[in-house]
Amino acid sequence: MTDFFNGIEPVRFAPDATGLAYRHYDPDETVAGKRLEDQLRFAVAYWHSFAWPGGDPFGGQTFQRPWFADDMDAARRKADVAFEMFGILGVPYFCFHDADIRPEGSSFAESKRNFEEIIAVFEAKMETARTRLLWGTANLFSHRRFMSGAATNPDPEIFAWSAATIKNCMDATHRLNGENYVLWGGREGYETLLNTDLAREMDQMGRMLSMVVDYKHKIGFKGQILVEPKPQEPSKHQYDYDVATVYGFLQRYGLENEVKLNLEQGHAILAGHTFEHEIALASALGLLGSIDMNRNDYQSGWDTDQFPTNVPEVTLAYYEILKAGGFTTGGTNFDAKLRRQSLSPEDLIAAHVGAIDVCARGLKAAAKMLDDDLLEAARRDRYAGWDSADAQAMLNSDLASIAAQVEASGRDPQPQSGRQEILENIVNRYV
Amino acid sequence: MTDFFNGIEPVRFAPDATGLAYRHYDPDETVAGKRLEDQLRFAVAYWHSFAWPGGDPFGGQTFQRPWFADDMDAARRKADVAFEMFGILGVPYFCFHDADIRPEGSSFAESKRNFEEIIAVFEAKMETARTRLLWGTANLFSHRRFMSGAATNPDPEIFAWSAATIKNCMDATHRLNGENYVLWGGREGYETLLNTDLAREMDQMGRMLSMVVDYKHKIGFKGQILVEPKPQEPSKHQYDYDVATVYGFLQRYGLENEVKLNLEQGHAILAGHTFEHEIALASALGLLGSIDMNRNDYQSGWDTDQFPTNVPEVTLAYYEILKAGGFTTGGTNFDAKLRRQSLSPEDLIAAHVGAIDVCARGLKAAAKMLDDDLLEAARRDRYAGWDSADAQAMLNSDLASIAAQVEASGRDPQPQSGRQEILENIVNRYV
Amino acid sequence: MTDFFNGIEPVRFAPDATGLAYRHYDPDETVAGKRLEDQLRFAVAYWHSFAWPGGDPFGGQTFQRPWFADDMDAARRKADVAFEMFGILGVPYFCFHDADIRPEGSSFAESKRNFEEIIAVFEAKMETARTRLLWGTANLFSHRRFMSGAATNPDPEIFAWSAATIKNCMDATHRLNGENYVLWGGREGYETLLNTDLAREMDQMGRMLSMVVDYKHKIGFKGQILVEPKPQEPSKHQYDYDVATVYGFLQRYGLENEVKLNLEQGHAILAGHTFEHEIALASALGLLGSIDMNRNDYQSGWDTDQFPTNVPEVTLAYYEILKAGGFTTGGTNFDAKLRRQSLSPEDLIAAHVGAIDVCARGLKAAAKMLDDDLLEAARRDRYAGWDSADAQAMLNSDLASIAAQVEASGRDPQPQSGRQEILENIVNRYV
Amino acid sequence: MTDFFNGIEPVRFAPDATGLAYRHYDPDETVAGKRLEDQLRFAVAYWHSFAWPGGDPFGGQTFQRPWFADDMDAARRKADVAFEMFGILGVPYFCFHDADIRPEGSSFAESKRNFEEIIAVFEAKMETARTRLLWGTANLFSHRRFMSGAATNPDPEIFAWSAATIKNCMDATHRLNGENYVLWGGREGYETLLNTDLAREMDQMGRMLSMVVDYKHKIGFKGQILVEPKPQEPSKHQYDYDVATVYGFLQRYGLENEVKLNLEQGHAILAGHTFEHEIALASALGLLGSIDMNRNDYQSGWDTDQFPTNVPEVTLAYYEILKAGGFTTGGTNFDAKLRRQSLSPEDLIAAHVGAIDVCARGLKAAAKMLDDDLLEAARRDRYAGWDSADAQAMLNSDLASIAAQVEASGRDPQPQSGRQEILENIVNRYV
Ligand SMILES: [Co+2]
Ligand SMILES: [Co+2]
Ligand SMILES: [Co+2]
Ligand SMILES: [Co+2]
Ligand SMILES: [Co+2]
Ligand SMILES: [Co+2]
Ligand SMILES: [Co+2]
Ligand SMILES: [Co+2]
Repeated sequence: MTDFFNGIEPVRFAPDATGLAYRHYDPDETVAGKRLEDQLRFAVAYWHSFAWPGGDPFGGQTFQRPWFADDMDAARRKADVAFEMFGILGVPYFCFHDADIRPEGSSFAESKRNFEEIIAVFEAKMETARTRLLWGTANLFSHRRFMSGAATNPDPEIFAWSAATIKNCMDATHRLNGENYVLWGGREGYETLLNTDLAREMDQMGRMLSMVVDYKHKIGFKGQILVEPKPQEPSKHQYDYDVATVYGFLQRYGLENEVKLNLEQGHAILAGHTFEHEIALASALGLLGSIDMNRNDYQSGWDTDQFPTNVPEVTLAYYEILKAGGFTTGGTNFDAKLRRQSLSPEDLIAAHVGAIDVCARGLKAAAKMLDDDLLEAARRDRYAGWDSADAQAMLNSDLASIAAQVEASGRDPQPQSGRQEILENIVNRYV
Repeated sequence: MTDFFNGIEPVRFAPDATGLAYRHYDPDETVAGKRLEDQLRFAVAYWHSFAWPGGDPFGGQTFQRPWFADDMDAARRKADVAFEMFGILGVPYFCFHDADIRPEGSSFAESKRNFEEIIAVFEAKMETARTRLLWGTANLFSHRRFMSGAATNPDPEIFAWSAATIKNCMDATHRLNGENYVLWGGREGYETLLNTDLAREMDQMGRMLSMVVDYKHKIGFKGQILVEPKPQEPSKHQYDYDVATVYGFLQRYGLENEVKLNLEQGHAILAGHTFEHEIALASALGLLGSIDMNRNDYQSGWDTDQFPTNVPEVTLAYYEILKAGGFTTGGTNFDAKLRRQSLSPEDLIAAHVGAIDVCARGLKAAAKMLDDDLLEAARRDRYAGWDSADAQAMLNSDLASIAAQVEASGRDPQPQSGRQEILENIVNRYV
Repeated sequence: MTDFFNGIEPVRFAPDATGLAYRHYDPDETVAGKRLEDQLRFAVAYWHSFAWPGGDPFGGQTFQRPWFADDMDAARRKADVAFEMFGILGVPYFCFHDADIRPEGSSFAESKRNFEEIIAVFEAKMETARTRLLWGTANLFSHRRFMSGAATNPDPEIFAWSAATIKNCMDATHRLNGENYVLWGGREGYETLLNTDLAREMDQMGRMLSMVVDYKHKIGFKGQILVEPKPQEPSKHQYDYDVATVYGFLQRYGLENEVKLNLEQGHAILAGHTFEHEIALASALGLLGSIDMNRNDYQSGWDTDQFPTNVPEVTLAYYEILKAGGFTTGGTNFDAKLRRQSLSPEDLIAAHVGAIDVCARGLKAAAKMLDDDLLEAARRDRYAGWDSADAQAMLNSDLASIAAQVEASGRDPQPQSGRQEILENIVNRYV
Repeated sequence: MTDFFNGIEPVRFAPDATGLAYRHYDPDETVAGKRLEDQLRFAVAYWHSFAWPGGDPFGGQTFQRPWFADDMDAARRKADVAFEMFGILGVPYFCFHDADIRPEGSSFAESKRNFEEIIAVFEAKMETARTRLLWGTANLFSHRRFMSGAATNPDPEIFAWSAATIKNCMDATHRLNGENYVLWGGREGYETLLNTDLAREMDQMGRMLSMVVDYKHKIGFKGQILVEPKPQEPSKHQYDYDVATVYGFLQRYGLENEVKLNLEQGHAILAGHTFEHEIALASALGLLGSIDMNRNDYQSGWDTDQFPTNVPEVTLAYYEILKAGGFTTGGTNFDAKLRRQSLSPEDLIAAHVGAIDVCARGLKAAAKMLDDDLLEAARRDRYAGWDSADAQAMLNSDLASIAAQVEASGRDPQPQSGRQEILENIVNRYV
């Protein structure tokens, strides 16, 4: 037991508490036919919560964590604190990159040894802790070797290094019974088109993803492969721009039945979409996998990765998820970092507790909206004209016959109200 | 002969002129192996130049054109002025929507008769004028019947009306020997997800586009079908968001070999991309068709559709087009409107002349850059490592064997400079 | 009695109603020491609700109102419907521009006569209706004569026309006992710097505002003069960009004690601010006047003027207003338009009802937050170090003596947590 | 002599060179009545060129400079390389923060000693080098102690530390005969309004700036005090948002005659303005001081600080500067960093050379445009109506008398073309 969270008790469901408590999240409450814990499937992000020092482009480290050092002892202390926090929060899952959990070695082999040693530490802890692994992933963007991309690097040796790193991370994820494996291509993109060969880099990326899928089958990993879209940052342009872009990419390389998506609110916003749009589109395309429920600031043009706070927005996101049938292998990860001024251990706990409550409120409101069927009844009603046999026949006919019929009929179809404000008011009864 | 352009002479190439003249555009100059006119293939947009009254969301008509009336006489006068302007500018092409050229009738049939009568006027004029049709299209967004979409409308009768309208516009385009037919889905999107069924609307849109392709083949139209992406406006979200999105859509409906794209700088910007990105990506995906060379204002969050002014930006766009082999059926349309304070006929001519010169400068600079090969040599050099047989073999291997080799080799590949500023400086020698 | 709202009864406070009702807005509830009606002071905007035809840059009229015609009879019918709606909603206020309520005449004098005739109609109605005038204003942006500005026009005759129009609108506002007079300079800005003399236009605008203030005093109008900031649209750049910009402008022309601000959420967003920022800043500068509580869409780069829907956001806005002491002459205007697909009379009523409830929830939550003092206690605590006599003395000393003391003391002050997430969680207990 | 730039010769003006050379910048060419060097007054930024390691929010150091270490030896080596680069480029100026040039000490006093020791190194070098100091400044944003602001910190001890640091930096700037002293308040703003007292923080900032002005006079520093506006980043909101905001702030604290502005293109863009707008406005308000000529990427929502590349844009900026009479104490600083993939010493030199040529082209084009007077003649003409005695009399009259005259005259003033495209075409003849 470390003394980092000294005195902070496990957080309980206590709606009327004055201190640190879940006011809305009761893991055992049944919502939409499941325990709330099993609906939301919360995960803590190892990188932001335990590895991020609080820097930004204009300033360095603000956090002073006892485990901030570049050696294996520190890495073990970090793991201790992490699992203590998982316990305090009572969350069922966590997620990690290789680089979050181990010091970089002086060679590939040493980094791998460091990594595997900490994976063994995790494995031991997970025998007793109830925390499981939502997903593992490889950090292929922080080290300078990845500055020009990983799979899309102009140097085949970096491609190789990246492939080898992914293999190790997939092995570890498999070993820890992770339910998904995620690829976020932060540097799979470009700073300037002037030095970039788009077609070639896309093909490299297609090959890497195909190898990932092949390897998954080879080792018998049953988890879901997920790609996380983001339009830019750190790259000026990132290839996995948004849901629609990744869909086109997956079809190009024949991977649309093998790979799904991990969607983040902040990335949706950066790409010019609402989060509910990205979720609804992924669902329509059969690609909905998991989510990172962390928001961006609407006035900041970069990825602020803040804990969610806006219940109405979160509700619309979960509404689309529930409409799609809820999570299967996916869950609700907080890819969220404390503001760099939030220095204390209490901030770290409280931020997660607040976010969990926001999500619980959102999901419960969404479940009730879906159950009451007001929105869906209105939606069905709006498209009801298409249910007729004539309408379906027309849809499967051709321009010339439709034109003949329109001209002959002499009818002048009149538009019907879209009722947007009335529907928005309905939502507001639930949030 | 109308007296609208009273006293404005046909514009000539005269580099040292003080008045209205082409200072850079000599249609007969040979650039990259073709006459400049045949490289650039300029087109005037009928809607902005002859039908737009100068309104914006906060104010009404500013232009007072003698042909602004809602009858066939006015439509014929408008056609007269249009062809006079084509002659004054000496542009080889124009483009139009049905609604630009004819008054709306009181029924579908009457609108069609009006339309066909003006098409006959065009046909007669085109016998003597040298102006040809770059593309025709249907306006399925201005009339209130389309307020909730055309192909994606919740009412099948609007779908039918849209299909019938497209048929007529395709017929007219075919009759006038148009080289392309364009679909821009300004209302194929949504205002709120709350009343929208994404999956259903996408399927409707897929069907409509398939019917368009079928009809093209049926009537023997040899032109290219083009979709014009735009992310939003007027809709909050438009389905044809950008190049990557349309690519995914085309694959979904098996149309990626039948349909190409008409790309607009302003729409690229709204979607978060540079114009050269959208062109390069379309080229990489085999979808490059034609362009609308009109810019947006970087400080305005809506589609300002301004005439192009920035030669360095235009150069990068044409560089990608030339790299892709230049236009085939496509060309350079100005989907650009005068600022609403630019009231005079002289403004209308001068805006086109300035834009044509900007494009001529851009294309000539791009051709020289390509010819000198400095950028392409640097690009080839950057990826040269991939040319080896070992690199290609690795690309076609698997994660496990790559990982074994990386770990065994003990090599630590070092990043190489991306040389962005040096490449930018090279471009600046040409513009 | 018109039959436009046929069958729609006056809206009552009925928390458990299933139909059209106020679920949260009870005008007589006491909140923060006043009746809720007197806290919120709701106003309906005549222009959007009764004069806007539903057009956007890509399409024309969608609404078909029986009073849409350009004559005095239609103007009277429009007034009838407006006052019927004020009665149905039970709102205490409305707002209008001259151009909303009367047809444009063929001369300045005729427009004035038309205007005064409708003002007389309003006056008569207001003798019996309980609706009062929150503010009047002049539309100096829709007619083509204003295309290059009103006060800032390069043509002094347009300046004169604008001044004369403002005079008439101020007279009417005074006659109807309006509580404020608003100036929004939609075209006081520029499309291109190339044809603009910034310094001269600013001086013209300063003179016009000074004349407005002088005229107010001359006629004994006791209402507040308000400027409404907006950064752009329709102009590329608008001079009254945001709160901070108008503050500098008012100081330049010695008007900072005569003029306050009318703040709109949508305009705050366009300028890169949150709404609560603009309110808090206006309050800190002594400029808080009134608000337009209509939201923009975060994904649309133009002013969407939508009815408010997000309770947490609205709460933060009212929190700043209550901290500033609440409204005096100001109120909550809905400068909001229906989505153009919301065609029915029911949409018009329901949109206002939903918005009123959202505001009522927001204000009540804000009042409770302020009363409970958790946020303010935390804020006082954070700055408590400044309360000491030493700190205040230092603040009034000089660099050299501070530097001597810092160097001598050898102290290394440590940063304290900003507790952002904890404060956000506190807000979430109220919304 | 270090060997960092091994083999790179001083850069000469050689228009036809194939290697590294100035193709457009001849310091001795006379432009607008001065030597080009004296017009442009280029400065190198110490921080980006010598202290920045190449990190971004998703990755660490990419540059490996021999002087990257945290001790005085390294600081001296860095100074050697810096002055070598000033010599190679032949630039007349440089700029620095305290933190760029010295290692942080373990106490305020030790940091000060380190700083003064390097200032002495600079002083010695400047006896022989021809490089002078354009401006000095204090870094009050990188160290964690400044995480909640410097002058605006909730802790008065941080205010004191900041004041003391500024004093030392002003002393050093004075000692090195700096021509300006700059304040950029990167953390003078907030992350959340919830923990912020806007009014109090503004007053603290007003006091600090007043102390700076007092101290300047006390020590007889003849340079100009400059504030550098930026709207956000790293802070969510920064108080010195843009020119207009700082103008209001300066007036509030009676400093508008003591302080001018240092304007950066990237910051203008982030605030929603063009660079030429910010320059023209500063000029109109009497606040134009100096510029940072580094661009942002229009598709990236953060401050990319790239070297300028677009000649037409740069031309419009210098046009406003020349119209304002050119620089006095100000100059053209490159607050620009290499892309983090531009690893080599050659990149560092070439980026500056390219930028200097872009600026030289821009300034020469601007001077010619101003000299030819086409734009200014058009501008004078547009406002000519205001030159009449009647127009001026009206401007100084009152609403009632203007209204009487408008109504009586019966005139209906007609709008005139704004000629935007024609003016844009004129600019394009020069760039
Ligand atoms: Co993120
Ligand atoms: Co994420
Ligand atoms: Co457009
Ligand atoms: Co277009
Ligand atoms: Co608005
Ligand atoms: Co408003
Ligand atoms: Co910057
Ligand atoms: Co700067």
